[in-house]
Amino acid sequence: MFDQKIYTERRKKLKQKLGNGLILLLGNVDSPMNYPANTFHFRQDSTFLYFFGLGFQRLAGVIDVESGDEIIFGDDVDIEDIIWMGPQVSLQEKAAKVGITQTAPYSQLFDAINQAIRQGRKIHFLPPYRAENKLLLQELLGIHAQKQKEYASLELIKAVIALRSVKEACEIEEIKKACATGYQMHVTAMKMAQPGAWEQTIAGTIEGISLANGSVPSFPIILSQNGETLHNHDHSNYLKKGKLLLVDAGAETSLRYASDFTRTTPVGGTFTQKQREIYEIVLAANNRAAELTRPGVTYLSVHLEAARVITAGLKALGLMKGDVDEAVRNGAHALFFPHGLGHMMGLDVHDMEDLGQIYVGYDDETRPVDQFGTAYLRLGKKLEPGFVITNEPGIYFIPALIDKWKHEKINTDFIDFGRLESYSDFGGIRLEDDLLVTAAGSELLGQRVPITPEEVEATVKG
Amino acid sequence: MFDQKIYTERRKKLKQKLGNGLILLLGNVDSPMNYPANTFHFRQDSTFLYFFGLGFQRLAGVIDVESGDEIIFGDDVDIEDIIWMGPQVSLQEKAAKVGITQTAPYSQLFDAINQAIRQGRKIHFLPPYRAENKLLLQELLGIHAQKQKEYASLELIKAVIALRSVKEACEIEEIKKACATGYQMHVTAMKMAQPGAWEQTIAGTIEGISLANGSVPSFPIILSQNGETLHNHDHSNYLKKGKLLLVDAGAETSLRYASDFTRTTPVGGTFTQKQREIYEIVLAANNRAAELTRPGVTYLSVHLEAARVITAGLKALGLMKGDVDEAVRNGAHALFFPHGLGHMMGLDVHDMEDLGQIYVGYDDETRPVDQFGTAYLRLGKKLEPGFVITNEPGIYFIPALIDKWKHEKINTDFIDFGRLESYSDFGGIRLEDDLLVTAAGSELLGQRVPITPEEVEATVKG
Ligand SMILES: [Mn+2]
Ligand SMILES: [Mn+2]
Repeated sequence: MFDQKIYTERRKKLKQKLGNGLILLLGNVDSPMNYPANTFHFRQDSTFLYFFGLGFQRLAGVIDVESGDEIIFGDDVDIEDIIWMGPQVSLQEKAAKVGITQTAPYSQLFDAINQAIRQGRKIHFLPPYRAENKLLLQELLGIHAQKQKEYASLELIKAVIALRSVKEACEIEEIKKACATGYQMHVTAMKMAQPGAWEQTIAGTIEGISLANGSVPSFPIILSQNGETLHNHDHSNYLKKGKLLLVDAGAETSLRYASDFTRTTPVGGTFTQKQREIYEIVLAANNRAAELTRPGVTYLSVHLEAARVITAGLKALGLMKGDVDEAVRNGAHALFFPHGLGHMMGLDVHDMEDLGQIYVGYDDETRPVDQFGTAYLRLGKKLEPGFVITNEPGIYFIPALIDKWKHEKINTDFIDFGRLESYSDFGGIRLEDDLLVTAAGSELLGQRVPITPEEVEATVKG
Repeated sequence: MFDQKIYTERRKKLKQKLGNGLILLLGNVDSPMNYPANTFHFRQDSTFLYFFGLGFQRLAGVIDVESGDEIIFGDDVDIEDIIWMGPQVSLQEKAAKVGITQTAPYSQLFDAINQAIRQGRKIHFLPPYRAENKLLLQELLGIHAQKQKEYASLELIKAVIALRSVKEACEIEEIKKACATGYQMHVTAMKMAQPGAWEQTIAGTIEGISLANGSVPSFPIILSQNGETLHNHDHSNYLKKGKLLLVDAGAETSLRYASDFTRTTPVGGTFTQKQREIYEIVLAANNRAAELTRPGVTYLSVHLEAARVITAGLKALGLMKGDVDEAVRNGAHALFFPHGLGHMMGLDVHDMEDLGQIYVGYDDETRPVDQFGTAYLRLGKKLEPGFVITNEPGIYFIPALIDKWKHEKINTDFIDFGRLESYSDFGGIRLEDDLLVTAAGSELLGQRVPITPEEVEATVKG
């Protein structure tokens, strides 16, 4: 349960991790679309939510590590505004619900920070990603927007990551709610994967499902019959028989916890032989990765094993050749699987990405690998019980990348470029589940969205 | 048709309106939700779209009024990125489609502006509303974010408003598309207005309809059985029999033109006698306002006539008393109708609100009225053919406002506070259509969403 205790305990642990100074955590404000009063849906900052639990605009939390004081700065609604906004709960009352007894008007934040600066105290802040908070930090701290990332507190970053990485029971429950909505979104998309359907109709319909459930999509929906285009937010195509529809989508609950699933569906509901062969390899890689996911193993090693399953499968089809281990050591699999196996997930779908992927996914023991493909792995370090991660292997036939490798003679020992030619129109397949690392291994979060070829075909055909 | 000519012609007219200097029009960038790569849907700046027609991120247009030169600054996608993003159209090609032959890398924008500053030339810019553009203008012009509004070019603001206020045929066609989606959204909401329905389910479903049509909502949907709370974006209630569901929602097409309708529906589909009496007054005010809307009349006068219809109607019910004209002169109607009759609509649902409502809605001839209620009228000036406006009278029973007036003895000559007591749980009714001012009068845009009590009841009951 997200009660007072949970927030008090989190802040207590945060204070214990930092030796001294003042911790400044900024909430978000509304972001305007096309004029100041017309705003996008409000999204509170995840770290602010984690420690203060308040999903309202224009708040800042200050924690004094030495004295232990905790204050929320923010303004109550004007009495006049109650006419327009209806009766309002005061900031004092809201703060009490998350165990904070001290509140002050927002303008006093400037005095509090100024005083600390004059006293020469360390002010720990996180790298801002909203331009509004960059402007605010310029005013508060006198640090130019472009320099703020550099001056952000690494000590605070690491402490926040250490806490947020290990999910509590109430967080897991909330992620499961996000998974339940994600399930509905994906099953609906599968049923709609019929020849002639407009991609945007499907994308809009499943976004509508998430909204009608009181969620929002956890990230802009990827939905395309050109699944090989990885950075693709285009929904302009009409589905054609013989193509695969790749859908990468998840929900974010009202408490802001995410789900993130990918499924790939044959338009009209029947895999061709060629599609099914590739699909089975991706599914085997996904299943193998889930099997290997357990505390103490690095996710880098799981990623590389998924790469080996993909390489062995493509070798059996004659698209790759040579020794599987050697091929993966040389990064040859990355022609087909050019991204990482997965990432942490929680209050952000790419959890804590604003704090720096290098700190979230790696540590002194496991360092990032600088090889095309594996370099994009967001999470490489040793898994711990309580981590929530995605498992999302894929195989793509990317014409521009194939041309480049062929032309530059990259990994020619491991790839049969001749055989590849008949796959130029294939597209791509990705299969993504969400996993909780448990004491014994891993647990799939939520009901598994139909994933075997039989399940998928049955779902499309209704 | 939104072709090259239309944009070239608009820029030509803009240059003619300004005597000299450089016009700097900034496009928008992506706004992050919870980390830099996770962004809200992209919304281009409306004025940038109006003159340059390009709905892509990180562009800036510079028009040299003296030399006539027009340049778009922006960056092409890296060759490496084509692997991830698929084949891309170059900026040069995109620019050519809107009649621009000169493009340059984004970084050269700084050189171009610096040079103009060194030459002592006037740089016309608009008041920024996105924090990203405030940061950019700080760098480009050396003007502090908080001072930028003050230094924005009033000459440019007035020229842009003069052009954008009068809609071209292609704009009207696009607004009608937005109206068609808005129609679907409202009819769906009416059908869903059943006891026990969750407001959020209805709001999410109609947002989904807009998305599935390739639109987005033109503003955050207002949908509440507490319609008397005007600034209400809460959708947390479950509908109760006997309540009224107020829905204020519209669509924004892919070209970014808006619709904006409000309807009020009895939960379950049957108006009570009391609801119907008030409803008929609001409908009469809406119809009367549409009748009066024509070139040459001020919208302030139409607003005041709607106020008189409301006052006369409430007097007939015994809720108001005294002379109707005198009551309206004293602002007594504003207890029930505390907002304006309408606003301009176009590329923004509150068209050009970022440029300053005083310049959009008023001029030297018609000045804003400083009286509670009418002070909130966004558009008061003389109507011209080609204006697109909303017509949205309403009657609300706002407990906090009634208490205040009663307690402070405001307008007691015109209001029967005793009779008002039985309306404390009534809620509010607003009926909003979109109108085009024509040479002869006005034209309702789109098919009229069911509006007579009979039409509404029939729609809910299916
Ligand atoms: Mn993912
Ligand atoms: Mn309106």
